[in-house]
Amino acid sequence: MKPALAKGTRDFMPQEVQRRQYIIQKLQKNFQLYGFAPIETPAFENLSTLTGKYGEEGDRLIFKILKSGDFLQKLKPEDLSANPNTVAPKISDKALRYDLTVPFARFVVQHQNELNFPFKRYQIQPVWRADRPQKGRFREFYQCDADVVGSESLWQEVELIQLYDAGFSDLGLEVEIHLNNRKILSGLAEVANISEQLIDFTVALDKLDKIGKAAVEEEMLSKGISEEALKILSPIFDISGDFSAQLEQLKPIVANSEIGIKGIEELQFINEQVQALGLKKSSLILNLTLARGLDYYTGAILEVKAKGVEMGSIGGGGRYNDLTGIFGLKNMPGVGVSFGLDRIYLVLEELNLFPDFTSESQKILFTNFGEKEALAAMKVVQKLRNQGIYTELYPEASKMKKQFSYADKGAFTHVAIIGTEEMNEGKLSLKDLKTGEQVSISQEEILEKFKA
Amino acid sequence: MKPALAKGTRDFMPQEVQRRQYIIQKLQKNFQLYGFAPIETPAFENLSTLTGKYGEEGDRLIFKILKSGDFLQKLKPEDLSANPNTVAPKISDKALRYDLTVPFARFVVQHQNELNFPFKRYQIQPVWRADRPQKGRFREFYQCDADVVGSESLWQEVELIQLYDAGFSDLGLEVEIHLNNRKILSGLAEVANISEQLIDFTVALDKLDKIGKAAVEEEMLSKGISEEALKILSPIFDISGDFSAQLEQLKPIVANSEIGIKGIEELQFINEQVQALGLKKSSLILNLTLARGLDYYTGAILEVKAKGVEMGSIGGGGRYNDLTGIFGLKNMPGVGVSFGLDRIYLVLEELNLFPDFTSESQKILFTNFGEKEALAAMKVVQKLRNQGIYTELYPEASKMKKQFSYADKGAFTHVAIIGTEEMNEGKLSLKDLKTGEQVSISQEEILEKFKA
Repeated sequence: MKPALAKGTRDFMPQEVQRRQYIIQKLQKNFQLYGFAPIETPAFENLSTLTGKYGEEGDRLIFKILKSGDFLQKLKPEDLSANPNTVAPKISDKALRYDLTVPFARFVVQHQNELNFPFKRYQIQPVWRADRPQKGRFREFYQCDADVVGSESLWQEVELIQLYDAGFSDLGLEVEIHLNNRKILSGLAEVANISEQLIDFTVALDKLDKIGKAAVEEEMLSKGISEEALKILSPIFDISGDFSAQLEQLKPIVANSEIGIKGIEELQFINEQVQALGLKKSSLILNLTLARGLDYYTGAILEVKAKGVEMGSIGGGGRYNDLTGIFGLKNMPGVGVSFGLDRIYLVLEELNLFPDFTSESQKILFTNFGEKEALAAMKVVQKLRNQGIYTELYPEASKMKKQFSYADKGAFTHVAIIGTEEMNEGKLSLKDLKTGEQVSISQEEILEKFKA
Repeated sequence: MKPALAKGTRDFMPQEVQRRQYIIQKLQKNFQLYGFAPIETPAFENLSTLTGKYGEEGDRLIFKILKSGDFLQKLKPEDLSANPNTVAPKISDKALRYDLTVPFARFVVQHQNELNFPFKRYQIQPVWRADRPQKGRFREFYQCDADVVGSESLWQEVELIQLYDAGFSDLGLEVEIHLNNRKILSGLAEVANISEQLIDFTVALDKLDKIGKAAVEEEMLSKGISEEALKILSPIFDISGDFSAQLEQLKPIVANSEIGIKGIEELQFINEQVQALGLKKSSLILNLTLARGLDYYTGAILEVKAKGVEMGSIGGGGRYNDLTGIFGLKNMPGVGVSFGLDRIYLVLEELNLFPDFTSESQKILFTNFGEKEALAAMKVVQKLRNQGIYTELYPEASKMKKQFSYADKGAFTHVAIIGTEEMNEGKLSLKDLKTGEQVSISQEEILEKFKA
């Protein structure tokens, strides 16, 4: 039997794991500095916790787990020709985590009496989606989320923008943090009398970068948005200048919409504080075309793009009025951001920003000439490990060529040789694999030479 | 809808996650020092990769994932009354990881041309089993495994014992490392002419500690092991002394079994090297009753018990001749150990060995008196974070009582107050929540005072 991975999944080789751990550690450090506490939820939830939360498409993409024991018990002959979605709950009662937000909502409701609100949590765990696999899209991938619940303060948005800046700067990345506000989009739709067509309007607007103004307007018209509405909206394509200048130009356009004005005020507050505090490497950009998550975002909408590389967004988030209403806990506003681990990985790789873990530390291989010599070597190995130095004994007394080949392939920096002579003299030969230089030193000297 | 966890699963609160991360980091550090490289495999594998690898009971306990799309397609009316185990593959083609060993075997076969043998990997990931949940037994739990494949050298066993010692010592734990060898058990069965009853013999022997010699012999008799065989085996109950003394007494008993003698020689080698190298906090104990994993272990069998606490084994492992034969790659011997994260957690908790993460670091909450004061506070917050200090701004300009209550519940060590006066003077009031002492200092002084 030739083994294979399940479709859309990946193995991670040591270097990939180390690089992923590197990203996660940088993010974790910043999550913690910003006051976010780690939580974890189980890989699977009751099916009823997840279904109906991600739309019809989402329900289809949730991986469902077969009931243990006699899962056929509740299945009737007529079910075999029924709609699989209605049959699923009869044979499945659990499902794999589809994102970190719904399990977090469940967590908040369930533990509400143990939490200190406003509660700031971060969570770094895999999620699973039965998407059709394609380049860069997998059925198992990690999400890294930071959310605050229980506070309507716009300082949260300010802090989350700072958190993005801190996290990405720590990884050596310059990013654009795109900011929009659902309230402005609603306001625009309101003044143009197309509130009913908010989604058509934003879906078309979202394509501005790709297809240009003319094509966007054409699409809007084709969706039944009137010429009159387009005339009202048209000035938004011409606003220019920096963040606050753009907001100023936007004000008269939405002047007749209370919610639109509110959206502008919110962005103004956020931008002012962010500018006053300064960002390390990132730029904050007003982006009216940003319309992700309109199903649930009610205020700020965020998206992050890396500079200098062609890649979709490497992060995103926003504010939602009601996180936990679905589970019976009302009035729990929240705001959060997500870091896209897989894409961040690809960006760091493309920009050559990963540190060279192999050159960072010394790796010593001790050769093996047989039982007695190996024990003498092992005594030094042990001391080096106690000093925090990565050290290995070659396990078999194989030919030197084989042992050196293992050292080469394994990216060892040094080979230490203890033969009979060296053993008797309390010495060893140390070969630097980079320079090829070989020296004879005492077993005390090697401990001096290598300190973590 | 009242939300609930799926049966047998857990949420982890921040303190639990931190404590689990603490254990994992200590183990990771030692895995790396000992030359083990991290890999990760997907949460689910093709169903065919997992079925038939864990026995009939195991097959039943594997969580199977429903096919996406029309999973009913292959189901026929007669299947509804058939054995669920034979029907499962028609509606499920994937299953959740049941342990880390079979996926590792699949990994080794699939990536054999990329790996540097002997290949040493560690892997820390959750596994899932449809066991009936009970106290301390969950349907989702982590395994932390370190294995070497491609080497028959007994130095691996020596190193794994050292690894156990190093890992557990780093966690402050004194442990007993119990060692046995499948070959000795086979040898004993051979000299007693009960090779066909090896399992009955070892299952009974395993109960020695709990039920005593008489009851063990009674059980063996009831399983059809003859009086004659018992007479031959009887001396094993009387061996005493240290590890090597016990081996000496065992030698004459298995003298007529080649495999038995081999087993003794192996343990002798391992014990001699371990004694010559010394252990930090652990003791190595010969334990003939240890018979875990006889389905696959072919040499050393290991089990770890924490001293000073009543708890099952907190680690185990052994040597297997053939890891990858099931996937078509022959002659791939291996040896590995596993650390039981959940039980280690419980032991550290019971022995009070977790560091106090909250007292280890300073946590400062800045109060919020409104927009201007908050911005002044935020400027200091930002500088403190840049110094690596955990700092938060209370997000709303709420009553002081509420802000202080948040600080108390959140285990903050200090509250920093910037009101209008302090803001204008470039000062702040710093209250130490432990001593209750409050001082007025400049905003530069607080940066001096708190350095990471």
